[in-house]
Amino acid sequence: MIDIASRVYNHNWKIDPIVRSLIDTDFYKLLMAQSVFLNKPKTQVTFSLINRARHIPLAKLIDERELRDQLDHIRTLSLSRGESTWLRGNMFYGKRSMFRAEFLEWFENLRLPPYHLEVKDDQYELTFEGDWPAVMLWEVPALAVLMELRSRAVLKNMGRFELQVLYARAMTKLWEKVERLRKVDDLLLADFGTRRRHSYLWQDWCVQAMMEGLGKKFVGTSNCLIAMRREVEAIGTNAHELPMVYSALAKSDKELAEAPYQVLKDWQDEHDGNLRIILPDTYGTQGFLERAPNWLSSWTGIRIDSGDPVKGAEAAISWWKSCGEDPSKKRVIFSDGLDEDMIAHLQSKFRGRVRCSFGWGTMLTNDFRGLVPDDALAPFSLVCKAISADGKPTVKLSDNPNKAMGPSSEIERYKRVFGVGEQVSQQIIV
Amino acid sequence: MIDIASRVYNHNWKIDPIVRSLIDTDFYKLLMAQSVFLNKPKTQVTFSLINRARHIPLAKLIDERELRDQLDHIRTLSLSRGESTWLRGNMFYGKRSMFRAEFLEWFENLRLPPYHLEVKDDQYELTFEGDWPAVMLWEVPALAVLMELRSRAVLKNMGRFELQVLYARAMTKLWEKVERLRKVDDLLLADFGTRRRHSYLWQDWCVQAMMEGLGKKFVGTSNCLIAMRREVEAIGTNAHELPMVYSALAKSDKELAEAPYQVLKDWQDEHDGNLRIILPDTYGTQGFLERAPNWLSSWTGIRIDSGDPVKGAEAAISWWKSCGEDPSKKRVIFSDGLDEDMIAHLQSKFRGRVRCSFGWGTMLTNDFRGLVPDDALAPFSLVCKAISADGKPTVKLSDNPNKAMGPSSEIERYKRVFGVGEQVSQQIIV
Repeated sequence: MIDIASRVYNHNWKIDPIVRSLIDTDFYKLLMAQSVFLNKPKTQVTFSLINRARHIPLAKLIDERELRDQLDHIRTLSLSRGESTWLRGNMFYGKRSMFRAEFLEWFENLRLPPYHLEVKDDQYELTFEGDWPAVMLWEVPALAVLMELRSRAVLKNMGRFELQVLYARAMTKLWEKVERLRKVDDLLLADFGTRRRHSYLWQDWCVQAMMEGLGKKFVGTSNCLIAMRREVEAIGTNAHELPMVYSALAKSDKELAEAPYQVLKDWQDEHDGNLRIILPDTYGTQGFLERAPNWLSSWTGIRIDSGDPVKGAEAAISWWKSCGEDPSKKRVIFSDGLDEDMIAHLQSKFRGRVRCSFGWGTMLTNDFRGLVPDDALAPFSLVCKAISADGKPTVKLSDNPNKAMGPSSEIERYKRVFGVGEQVSQQIIV
Repeated sequence: MIDIASRVYNHNWKIDPIVRSLIDTDFYKLLMAQSVFLNKPKTQVTFSLINRARHIPLAKLIDERELRDQLDHIRTLSLSRGESTWLRGNMFYGKRSMFRAEFLEWFENLRLPPYHLEVKDDQYELTFEGDWPAVMLWEVPALAVLMELRSRAVLKNMGRFELQVLYARAMTKLWEKVERLRKVDDLLLADFGTRRRHSYLWQDWCVQAMMEGLGKKFVGTSNCLIAMRREVEAIGTNAHELPMVYSALAKSDKELAEAPYQVLKDWQDEHDGNLRIILPDTYGTQGFLERAPNWLSSWTGIRIDSGDPVKGAEAAISWWKSCGEDPSKKRVIFSDGLDEDMIAHLQSKFRGRVRCSFGWGTMLTNDFRGLVPDDALAPFSLVCKAISADGKPTVKLSDNPNKAMGPSSEIERYKRVFGVGEQVSQQIIV
């Protein structure tokens, strides 16, 4: 049936917004924003877009006006009443009132700060500067906008039936993964795919497919808006930006060596149980664990986000044993570049030895590989990172040197302070 | 575009549920349920469907199997996580935590109790028996189911374009009312049309039309599910069932005379501000006000729900004056059989003298008069009332003898106790 009013309305859209809500973001961003709001509210940071896939000329593919329209639209967003109610009233990780009243009041009044956009060598140079708690909330929506604008740029040349067949194939592809994963015993899997998703609607579809297809093996999504609308758990703890910024602020090598642990000390003051998850790889997992203070061994688990995941999990197990802890009571969360094969492999390898769970990202929400000519919809590695704090550059070493970032002199200094030696490179797919 | 999966799924629906949520009900039902849960949780009540429009043979129009399927479906419903979160976290009437934890825990575990259904003289005899807090929650969904099944029975004989034109006309009709009401100065209008709506989707459309068309003149809806989804205020206070059941439980004429005030005493212990609204007409407004205790004059307002609304409002104004209260600071809520003409008339008559507001019901959400042959979609007066409490019959006198109910010997006794003399009959349209 033709609904003339809807059609006229649609014709007059200026833009079709990609991000329509401030909570269309990862849950851990909100937890971290609260932590920063309480501990380092005045730190001045710069976040910057980094396209690790230099061969994809984003500024040629995506129209600058469209990009600005989308970013400008995000700056008009504010927390809606229902969203605030959900943040206040919902149970997160078994706890009500996860967010403090003063933080929520700040969040309710927040509009995202200005952005700075330039074009250089067919790439966008997109940066955000200002107070850490506000600037950090740009990361996920900025990435989601660039990923979806790139999808749209490819899709707009396709015909109606071509499009229908494309999505039919993508759905079939995902459903086959779900059927495979359904057979993995004791699996616990969450959606971590917001930032590099194909599109919002597609991520929402993927979550619903997992809800139906995986039942209790699907434990939730990192996306707050989808968690709220689909009434599933919001999942996530913390990320590299905390140790990176704390480290940049360190005034001496001694303070620098302590910074990653100071992050977790502040975190421990606020959170317990399943929110006490160590992210050890910012400056090398091995050294981090060797120098870790005693109290850290009592934490609930470790997230493995770079390097060889088997080696990372084995390092965690050895460390727990050396501290007199029982690894089979500990959680290991794998979240780096997973696909269904790797998930099944890791689960069979570590099931029983530790409590495994999986944060499945880009290959869940953006696996359009092989579905269009020239693989023009294949996902790629785009990130948005804190590059400086109070005027000093940030550094990341990671367990994969291809993920390292920062000025080379600072990288050398960090390697010395954190005792990082030879590292094994791994190809970054997403 | 044809979505084969959706079509196959739709073909296999057993029923298309009319009520899909336990909060697809009036807000005042939840407030009253909490009050009853706290004050009279063990009172045994019987609620019964009453079709005041005897000329409409519901049992001939509506298939009994379909009715049972819908009622059975409602018995499978329970409060969802998101609904509970909303009830816990949302601000109602400017207050958070309107509902107590023990009530919400009870509500989260509630399934509606069994129903009893028989057919007699082409009418359905539908009754519900049990603990008051649970049984009372049948009223609104039972009415909504019967109203919508009657709509569907008429609609299923219509063709596709006929249907489209029908809704186009209904929308036009409502929009003309909205345009008329937009010009009424200082109007405050709420949707009270859940129980006798044409359908859920239509009520939801009406609310959205008022949001856009009336702006701040539209203050909210009595329907909790729509209030949650559309992020507007949930509106409502209390109803006749409280004085009716309290009165039935009275052990003497003296206790009976006190019962309507006892209701408000219990209410006052729990609520303040805009929730302190007197509903004076259960046993005659005039006598109720004459015998009212002093503390009642400090309440915020009065709801006029039967009789001549001008006379009712004038009686309230005189009473406030006699108590030394300033009527211009008091609220009068009109909620009986309103249409746009009456709303505009009452507003112009009482604006400035009192604070007016309007609860617009059936003629908002079910005005399909004149749109199909034989007026087969015109709304009619269907109610579901408490008819007994702990084995004793309930009585309602109202300010309109056509709305009176109860055994005639008891009606006479109540008239004597409450000093009700001659009353003026008014035609009941809805």
